[in-house]
Amino acid sequence: MTKKVAVILSGCGFLDGAEIHESVLTLLNLDLLNINYQCFAVDIDQADVVNHLTGEATPEKRNVLVESARIARGNIKDISQLVTSEFDALILPGGYGVAKNLSNFATKGATMDMPESVQKACQSFATNNKPIGLICIAPALAGKIFGEPVRCTIGNDEETAAALEQMNVIHQNCVVNDIVVDEKHKLVTTPAYMLASRISEAADGIAKLVKQVIAFI
Amino acid sequence: MTKKVAVILSGCGFLDGAEIHESVLTLLNLDLLNINYQCFAVDIDQADVVNHLTGEATPEKRNVLVESARIARGNIKDISQLVTSEFDALILPGGYGVAKNLSNFATKGATMDMPESVQKACQSFATNNKPIGLICIAPALAGKIFGEPVRCTIGNDEETAAALEQMNVIHQNCVVNDIVVDEKHKLVTTPAYMLASRISEAADGIAKLVKQVIAFI
Repeated sequence: MTKKVAVILSGCGFLDGAEIHESVLTLLNLDLLNINYQCFAVDIDQADVVNHLTGEATPEKRNVLVESARIARGNIKDISQLVTSEFDALILPGGYGVAKNLSNFATKGATMDMPESVQKACQSFATNNKPIGLICIAPALAGKIFGEPVRCTIGNDEETAAALEQMNVIHQNCVVNDIVVDEKHKLVTTPAYMLASRISEAADGIAKLVKQVIAFI
Repeated sequence: MTKKVAVILSGCGFLDGAEIHESVLTLLNLDLLNINYQCFAVDIDQADVVNHLTGEATPEKRNVLVESARIARGNIKDISQLVTSEFDALILPGGYGVAKNLSNFATKGATMDMPESVQKACQSFATNNKPIGLICIAPALAGKIFGEPVRCTIGNDEETAAALEQMNVIHQNCVVNDIVVDEKHKLVTTPAYMLASRISEAADGIAKLVKQVIAFI
């Protein structure tokens, strides 16, 4: 039986959505291992729309599911259709979309919460002890997802790590091309663009993360 | 001296801009070979904005340079700033953006033309005999760029190939994971998502294309 992984995207562009390189590298590494994947996203407006040339917010409105569809080449489903029993593992690429659209970590820090559909979908993998891979800033969701202490990394940013430690995370510093593994929870994390200064650095860590997630199945 | 490659993007999303996977794979393969790159895009409105979930056009307006900046993580310049002497080669990923924003091939076919700034930039690499890589549908620009017969591929689509052959292109069928090379013009092409049914197929051809472009420098 071919293994199947759910990938949750949070938009299309690192300043207001999913980090594009991390998302594409996730899909590439899954496909290279002959793993089927299905992308999902939440059908809500993005928290904001940022001009990626200037870095400034714009008055535009864009939808997380519709923009995520750009990365998925249209092959994407509403997260409400994610049936955990149909998948062997879950991976979330990073980007500010995780901290703005899949949670309000960007504005609330350790007091953040998540849209119910996103939290429910992620928790369902955790409670069924199915492997979860969280890339870049996505470990900000780990505390809420597991509801008990889990080991993970967002690289070495002290302020972000401190916020995560207020939310059930045991933070472990990690270099850009490596992963942190919580064996008990089958949770794998890598810093990617929390630390990467070039795409090949992010690619190394994400390749290791995908391999470890698949090994846990 | 480190080699440097210019990459021209045409938006962000295969239905109205640059094909995201092809663009990211281009940057990844350049970086894996320790080649510096700089992304460029044209500062004009996109021909259209397509909802990638439904495939339908929307009334939105988006700018090619601003949207391309999502793929380039903000590190992108207006094509009017592209100085050919600063670069060793040029690569254009595909996506409908090439046929809608970098030309009007999508509506005009063999009678297409290109925005002057794009045509001038690309022609400058050709007249200086610097290597050019064209991915997916980007070979639709080859006839205009070279102004004389050049050999290239868009895969095996007969109708598209026939249109290109009306524009100075000698079309050669090619499988998804291979390249077509015009030695004299240092022109390299690969079908990518003209044929690919999965990202790893596009990745194979693009890796070969990038290697051959660099070998020509």
